Formats: sequence, structure tokens, C-alpha cells
Amino acid sequence: MKTLILISHPKLADSATQEFLKTAGKSQTNVAFEYIDDLYKGTKIDIVQEQQRLIKYNRMVFQFPLYWYSSPASLKQYMDDVFTRKFVVANHLLRNKELGIVVTLGDAEAEFQAGGSEHFTISELLRPFEAFANKAGMTYLKPFVVSQFGYLEEEQKELLLVDYLQYVSAQMPLSLDNREKWLVDQLTHMKQEKSEDDQQKLDLIIGSIEARQDQLDDLKTNVKMIRDQEE
Amino acid sequence: MKTLILISHPKLADSATQEFLKTAGKSQTNVAFEYIDDLYKGTKIDIVQEQQRLIKYNRMVFQFPLYWYSSPASLKQYMDDVFTRKFVVANHLLRNKELGIVVTLGDAEAEFQAGGSEHFTISELLRPFEAFANKAGMTYLKPFVVSQFGYLEEEQKELLLVDYLQYVSAQMPLSLDNREKWLVDQLTHMKQEKSEDDQQKLDLIIGSIEARQDQLDDLKTNVKMIRDQEE
Repeated sequence: MKTLILISHPKLADSATQEFLKTAGKSQTNVAFEYIDDLYKGTKIDIVQEQQRLIKYNRMVFQFPLYWYSSPASLKQYMDDVFTRKFVVANHLLRNKELGIVVTLGDAEAEFQAGGSEHFTISELLRPFEAFANKAGMTYLKPFVVSQFGYLEEEQKELLLVDYLQYVSAQMPLSLDNREKWLVDQLTHMKQEKSEDDQQKLDLIIGSIEARQDQLDDLKTNVKMIRDQEE
Repeated sequence: MKTLILISHPKLADSATQEFLKTAGKSQTNVAFEYIDDLYKGTKIDIVQEQQRLIKYNRMVFQFPLYWYSSPASLKQYMDDVFTRKFVVANHLLRNKELGIVVTLGDAEAEFQAGGSEHFTISELLRPFEAFANKAGMTYLKPFVVSQFGYLEEEQKELLLVDYLQYVSAQMPLSLDNREKWLVDQLTHMKQEKSEDDQQKLDLIIGSIEARQDQLDDLKTNVKMIRDQEE
């Protein structure tokens, strides 16, 4: 599973949220980042090169702050330029890939609903991206919303970090099973750089997670049997 | 009533639809056009100048072809640049103005619904613009949709032309009353450049429209009285 995160942010250097997510994301070997605004700073964008890069990934994630209820213009420019009709519709070159969206909000997420100051839900506002995924034959993932990052406590940021890393690199859907598999992968990967002593400790942790998973599977089977008998 | 039409179209010269709408729109003295893509071709956009221009108009119309279920990037760039938080939210400088959208589609409008190939309605896809109007305190007008212009018959194009001119320059909502007032205004304006003979003919036409309007008003009053008695 390889993921490409396409970041659209005109003031990237000033964004504590993007800095935080970038630092987190760099720990993942199967995750690459691309900065769309940088692409448009120099010479003309190389559309063929972009298209050839995109097809190497299974998951594409658009990451941006919500600007006037959509992405900043740079992501739209990238879509208008790179997602040609031939590439997306005629040749189906994005088909069966996943499209994720990481959107950061300056307002509280609770305002994004009927009766709130922003009136519409994030789901509604992101419809154009969902419609794109539909046209491209991609699987549209539940958007990952980061709301008012600056107000988060340290502990909340740590939880956000794990959720974000799973969003960009774990198997979807983000069920308990897939989250645990992801965790075991992370620990297994971490082992490589550790001392023998630490490796043994990590093995114990991995073993205990896997054992818990087995117990969970047994429980699920039992619950299913009871339900089946009831019907 | 003054209207500014902001056109976003990266290939304006190739578009028969835009050429048609532009020619039509030029007949209206209270309607001005601005080509966003041209604004971004030369030197840096003058944000203050744009803001000062916008506040002179009562109606602002975004006119564009639907590109990946939204406007082309140039309109978004304009929004990101010109609609600063200070201009729109703190100083409320667009408040009580109207926001119209003229959107042209390459696909049949009927595909834009649940079960259609495009899945979502135009209303849903344009939510970000509606949310913007809401935040700016503007009145959001029903979008004006032009679908598959190339396939229209000559007569359909003529009807489209009148509907478009009313959308950009008539009093809203586009009730029968407001449409007729608009028509009388057009004819009155037309009179100025005509011979005395033609002027008399136009006066007859205007008189007959106004008489019909009086009859209609009488009828409405009668219907209302009957309804009131029924309750």
C-alpha cells in the first residue's frame, strides 16, 4: 500500500498544523508528499510526469485548509491541469485507487451543519471531490477533519497524530482489526533499529496485541453464533 | 441595478457558449464583464482595485464552465485573493448584494441527480458558493444552468438569450411581473434610437404589455378575494 499526499497550502511555512502532519507523515516509509504550490512556482508543470507519478500509488490524499468552503486554488489548478479527460475518463488510470481528503478548519466542526454558522456539513461542501472520485472510479474515503488545531491539548494532538497516520497508511476501512494490524506493522518496523533487549520487549508487546486480537476474533465468532440461533 | 459578470474560463476564445452570452450581455447598459483569466496573465492582481470595483455593483455573477464539478481554478484564485476575511466578514462589504451563478455543462443536466452518471445535483455541487454567499450576507440566486449549448436549436438559443439577459439584469425574483417590467424597460430603451414611426409602434406594444399587466393584477386580486372567502 503506497500513499501520495498532495498538499495544497499557499502559506505552508506559516502553518503549525501542516508542519505537525508533515513531521508525523515522514515516519511512514510508504507515504510520499508533494507540495502543489511549489510545483507552480517555477517552470511550467510537467503534466505527463505528474500523471506517471500518480499511477504508482494506491491511495491519493488531498490535504488542504478549507478556503471559502473548498480547497485553495492551487489544488483546483492541479486537478484542471493533470486530471485530463483522457487520463481519468477514457484511460481510467485512477480507477480502483482510493481518494482521501485531509481538511483543516479554522472554525469548530460543529458549525458545519444546518443551524450552525457555516450552514453546510463537510460532506456537502466536499461533494465536488466525491463527484470526481465517482467519475474516476476511485473509492472515496471518509474525509479526515482537523478542526482548530491550535486549541488542542498535547494529549489530543498525540491522538490526532495516530489517527492521521492510520488514515494515510492503514488498510481501509479503519476497523479495529485494520488499526491493530497497522499497529503491529509499526512495531515490527520499529524493532529493526533497536537493541536486542528492546527488540524482545517489542516482541512481547506485539505478541500481546496479537493474542488480544485472537481473543477478539473468538468473541466475535461467539456473538455471531448466538445471533444466528436467535433468528 | 448594476451587475458585474465575472467570467472564469481558461479557453474563452474557443467557447461558442461564452461568445454567445457575451454578445447578448453587451446589449445591457447596466451590465459589465470582467475576465478573470486575463487579470492573472500580466502583473500581480490589484486586490484593492478589485474590491473597490465590486462594491459598486448590486449583483455579482460568477460565470464559468463546470470543471471537475466546480469552477475553473482561476475563479477560486480570485476568491482566495480578493475576498479577504476583512473585506467579506469584518467589513461586510458584499452584504445585501446578490450572488448569481451562470454555469455551463458539457453533460446533460438530467445526469446531475441521484441515479444519473454525475450522481449529484447542481445545487449540491455548488454548495461552496452558496456557503460563501451565506457568510458574506449575500442573497444567493438560483443558478442559471446552460447545458449542452452546442446541441440547441436556433429557437432554443433565442429563448436562452432572453432568459440569460433577465437573469443578469432583471429584478429578482424572476416572477411574471418582474419579467414584464424588464421587457418594458428594454423596449423603452430601444425607442431612443428609432425613427418616430417605429417609436409610435413601440409605444403601442409597451401600452399593450402594461394593459395586460393591469388585467393580470385585477385577476390576481379577484382570485385572492375568492380564496379569502373560502377560508
